[in-house]
Amino acid sequence: MIKVTLKGGVVKEYEAGISVLEIAKDLGAGLYKAACAAKIGDKVVDLRTPVTEDCELAILTFDDEQGKKAFWHTASHVLAQAVKRLFPSAKFAIGPAIDGGFYYDFDVEKPFTAEDLLKIEAEMKKIVKEGIPLERFELEPADALELMKDEPFKLELIQEHAGKGEKISFFKQGDFTDLCAGPHLPDTSRIKAFKLTSSTGAYWRGDSKKAMLCRVYGTAFPKASELEAHLTAIEEAKKRDHNKIGRELEYFTTSDMIGQGLPIMLPKGARVIQQLQRFVEDEEERRGYLLTKTPLMAKSDLYKVSGHWDHYKDGMFVLGDEEKDDEVFALRPMTCPFQYQVFLNRMRSYRDLPMRLGETSTLFRNESSGEMHGLIRVRQFTISEGHLIVRPEQLEEEFRGCVELANFMLETVGLKEDASYRFSKWDPNNKDKYEGTTEQWETAQAQMRKILDHLGMEYTEEEGEAAFYGPKLDIQLKNVHGKEDTAITVQIDMMLAKKFGMEYVDTDGSKTTPYIIHRTSLGCYERTLALLIEKYAGALPMWMMPTQVEVLPIGERQHEAAKEIVAKLKAAGIRTELDDRNEKIGYKIREAQMEKTPYMIVLGDKEIENNVVAVRNRKEGDMGTMSLDAFIALAKEEIETKAIK
Amino acid sequence: MIKVTLKGGVVKEYEAGISVLEIAKDLGAGLYKAACAAKIGDKVVDLRTPVTEDCELAILTFDDEQGKKAFWHTASHVLAQAVKRLFPSAKFAIGPAIDGGFYYDFDVEKPFTAEDLLKIEAEMKKIVKEGIPLERFELEPADALELMKDEPFKLELIQEHAGKGEKISFFKQGDFTDLCAGPHLPDTSRIKAFKLTSSTGAYWRGDSKKAMLCRVYGTAFPKASELEAHLTAIEEAKKRDHNKIGRELEYFTTSDMIGQGLPIMLPKGARVIQQLQRFVEDEEERRGYLLTKTPLMAKSDLYKVSGHWDHYKDGMFVLGDEEKDDEVFALRPMTCPFQYQVFLNRMRSYRDLPMRLGETSTLFRNESSGEMHGLIRVRQFTISEGHLIVRPEQLEEEFRGCVELANFMLETVGLKEDASYRFSKWDPNNKDKYEGTTEQWETAQAQMRKILDHLGMEYTEEEGEAAFYGPKLDIQLKNVHGKEDTAITVQIDMMLAKKFGMEYVDTDGSKTTPYIIHRTSLGCYERTLALLIEKYAGALPMWMMPTQVEVLPIGERQHEAAKEIVAKLKAAGIRTELDDRNEKIGYKIREAQMEKTPYMIVLGDKEIENNVVAVRNRKEGDMGTMSLDAFIALAKEEIETKAIK
Repeated sequence: MIKVTLKGGVVKEYEAGISVLEIAKDLGAGLYKAACAAKIGDKVVDLRTPVTEDCELAILTFDDEQGKKAFWHTASHVLAQAVKRLFPSAKFAIGPAIDGGFYYDFDVEKPFTAEDLLKIEAEMKKIVKEGIPLERFELEPADALELMKDEPFKLELIQEHAGKGEKISFFKQGDFTDLCAGPHLPDTSRIKAFKLTSSTGAYWRGDSKKAMLCRVYGTAFPKASELEAHLTAIEEAKKRDHNKIGRELEYFTTSDMIGQGLPIMLPKGARVIQQLQRFVEDEEERRGYLLTKTPLMAKSDLYKVSGHWDHYKDGMFVLGDEEKDDEVFALRPMTCPFQYQVFLNRMRSYRDLPMRLGETSTLFRNESSGEMHGLIRVRQFTISEGHLIVRPEQLEEEFRGCVELANFMLETVGLKEDASYRFSKWDPNNKDKYEGTTEQWETAQAQMRKILDHLGMEYTEEEGEAAFYGPKLDIQLKNVHGKEDTAITVQIDMMLAKKFGMEYVDTDGSKTTPYIIHRTSLGCYERTLALLIEKYAGALPMWMMPTQVEVLPIGERQHEAAKEIVAKLKAAGIRTELDDRNEKIGYKIREAQMEKTPYMIVLGDKEIENNVVAVRNRKEGDMGTMSLDAFIALAKEEIETKAIK
Repeated sequence: MIKVTLKGGVVKEYEAGISVLEIAKDLGAGLYKAACAAKIGDKVVDLRTPVTEDCELAILTFDDEQGKKAFWHTASHVLAQAVKRLFPSAKFAIGPAIDGGFYYDFDVEKPFTAEDLLKIEAEMKKIVKEGIPLERFELEPADALELMKDEPFKLELIQEHAGKGEKISFFKQGDFTDLCAGPHLPDTSRIKAFKLTSSTGAYWRGDSKKAMLCRVYGTAFPKASELEAHLTAIEEAKKRDHNKIGRELEYFTTSDMIGQGLPIMLPKGARVIQQLQRFVEDEEERRGYLLTKTPLMAKSDLYKVSGHWDHYKDGMFVLGDEEKDDEVFALRPMTCPFQYQVFLNRMRSYRDLPMRLGETSTLFRNESSGEMHGLIRVRQFTISEGHLIVRPEQLEEEFRGCVELANFMLETVGLKEDASYRFSKWDPNNKDKYEGTTEQWETAQAQMRKILDHLGMEYTEEEGEAAFYGPKLDIQLKNVHGKEDTAITVQIDMMLAKKFGMEYVDTDGSKTTPYIIHRTSLGCYERTLALLIEKYAGALPMWMMPTQVEVLPIGERQHEAAKEIVAKLKAAGIRTELDDRNEKIGYKIREAQMEKTPYMIVLGDKEIENNVVAVRNRKEGDMGTMSLDAFIALAKEEIETKAIK
């Protein structure tokens, strides 16, 4: 007999060798039906796994991240089985669970059409109805190769595993067998609701020199209502996707001639970024930052000292060839070593510290083509970067100042509620990726943890996410599709100051190496714009809107009066446009509304006669009439307070 | 007998074969003494030249550009003769006249010391006193080679000329003979006042793979008082040189690790550029410009369409290798093809034109190392670039708008009085350098001339200075050393719109190719900063000064009150610093004065007691006491009106 500790600390005894699924059954029909996978100790296991010794056991359902994965992975096998039945000549590559669903890659003569997908869905329904059990078995590599002899992609995968001396794991469901490590659901009947969402081309192993496969995407849920809700949410997200509406509303565009990952900011996008940039630079000036403007490229010499040449060269755009040219330059991927030259310009004293340096900095990253996405994943971006050079005793206070500034920025633009905090540590199993000794890392991480705890903030921890020179606090934001990215970061660096010979004369006259805090305040402007467009579905807070007010004369008779109003609004510092096209007023209003213009002033004879303006707000609609001065006061108030409405 | 037409149309008759010098003598002793060279028709000639036929003749003196050159060139021969006497083993390279004087390059065992230069000057004085005549003679190449057999550099030069079938020209002055085309003064006695100003290393023919020579610089004048005035002006210019005081006042610096031509803007420089940039962007917005922000690099595809790849590739930083890589990128040397993508984003109508696009644009030019200078000649710079896409009938008005904007900008920053205008045309003898046909160029240049004449402005004309796609109006500014550079340019382009397929739907529904005006409004920010530093010797107009007011408490007792004043000034939008160091007030004032801080507020007990501030201005000195509010009003007025004081 063995003791199994369940959720909540309940301990139950079972005969050794009992399967997880049998335990789930014993615990209740509901749990048995919902079970997707399990966790023994820290290890995620298949439901068929025999339990042979005392352990902690958790049954994972679709509500658990790993349970979802098993569910979607099983759905991908159902997809594959259906393809096998309908397209017997198809060759099978891989079919994993991914965020929000699953895919399977097939080698077929011609890519699946929309009609094909409907047929495959119908066949999948049959397979689900058949309730075919999934059975796991293992083979010696030689037998595995024999079994899969008609599947070239599987053979390639088996051969890679063959050398390791392990058996090869398979899952079989009726007439379909797949090379697979699991875990999987007990049978196909549990895939109650599913949908194939799209198909696309994908290279085998993501390598453009290898075969082009047909990738079919899908998603699945235990209940039809959940599938429905999910599909609706995706549709909703698509409507807000900055890569769609940011282009439609003419915030940005791209050009094949210019290249991928190099977005062009159209006048509206450029205006928002200008407003954000001024906001950041002014706020930093208020907080005692010194503005700098350093070069966007440097000789390799600089990056060799900083360590970027060793740790980051693949991500950099390099100009020239070290073997042929006297001088090799590289575009900067980070501002750090450039801004240090400002400190190094002359001898510094303890009185000069903390030195807070801020820069609206353009950076370049040599991302590979496949990774580009809208304004989020790009090859060139502009970021509110900065470095604080501080005495050791100033570290905690200055770190807090950086976090406060970041929070203030997020709060102002309305993204604070979506932020989460991550303490990003080095990966002690991968020390080559980092500068410095284990001791230095442990010291720095302990110091950072102490500061974070003093700040009293909630944060998660993640190994392997540190910078190569020190640990980071990452402020994470999710985009409309739920994908998380680092928006803002505050880092402690105890390595680079020494490498660059940065020193200050301390109170006692001795030369001391300062600490450096690397930080961004609002982060990357392109990414921020993308998040804002998605958050507000294009209706950005008024202070940053490219057009804040649009004046709409009903007919040509009101053009002169409209022009006067536009002039007055502009003189008051309000970005105003005039729509004097010969169109119906309803059409003009609809268009201004589509553009998310915060206020529309509709001008007819009556308004001119009464010396008032009729005001419409993009959210509230008709606000009635008021004097122009009253409207200007209201508009300026909304702009100056950076209100979110 | 021949007829010689002199200045003012006077005609005199002389015997054919008379020398220019004899004619000068005939015209008067004053002119004879002052004569340096002459012009027969359009050709500059030596004074010894025989006049053999009817012609127009002008005697050139030191007041003429070419006369100066002959004077300085002769001085360089005097220098060489002195070196020959004192250092018989020296080998002689070349010794031309340059802007402001002359140099001679010598190959000597060790570079000349300051003492050597004094000795050489003393020997030069002797040579001048000796009044040695310069005589011109010619030799066949073979004889020339024999004569110069001990002078390797001269041999190299003779060999290059040898193939041309021409005789080789020499000038002899006593014991010194030099390979030289002239023209020269009649004798050495005329070099009344001279000075060797410096010596430096220089490669033979500017090629770092060739011999390192010792270059001696000097200048010379007909009168001692002129030399004196010139040397004083140079000293004065050095004091204002942005490359000196811009570094001393910590506006910018450079770093060997980053590389040449990549200046680092220190906080003071970055602040000035930020203020200029905001001024430009806001003024352009007021004038109906749309702001854009386009990528700093693109695939070679873009430059191939624009013509930059053919006409400008050597000046570009290229990323990658066309033979090896799928994609080759290049950093942009100009914004044009990037900003066109904004126009191309969707179909445009005549209603959208004129479309005025402005961008604060960073550009990269692959200048060779020898050409770098401070903030003037750099590899990366930021410029207020823009393009106006216009209907043909809008061309003139929009062109005028660009010139008015440029003039407004120059007027505001105080550089207008130093500006001159140049109509830069193509070089019809070098058509390969340009896009388009002769007819297109003639049309465009005629159009531009018409516009310039309508504008009623004074301008010079220069061939070979056009852009490869069209003629330009260049606004030229001189730096403190008298070197002229193009600060602002307005260009007409009738080529690129077609190449990029830019079209708009005209009033009649037909598709029409627009004209494009390329223009800068304040030009390159780095260069503007340099010119401003030199113009104002660092005391920039208050609105752009990094620190506008410095508060100087007399002692520690006034620190609290000083902090309150600083806070109030900052709240009023005035960039204010506090000097709370434990230093004497006189020292603090001197330092703030050195930094050219516009206003200093000196704070003692008396001022606190009377609730006033004691104000000092960097130019006017002590301004007495006033209420803080009165000072704030005065300071804000000076900032808001962008006053030049």
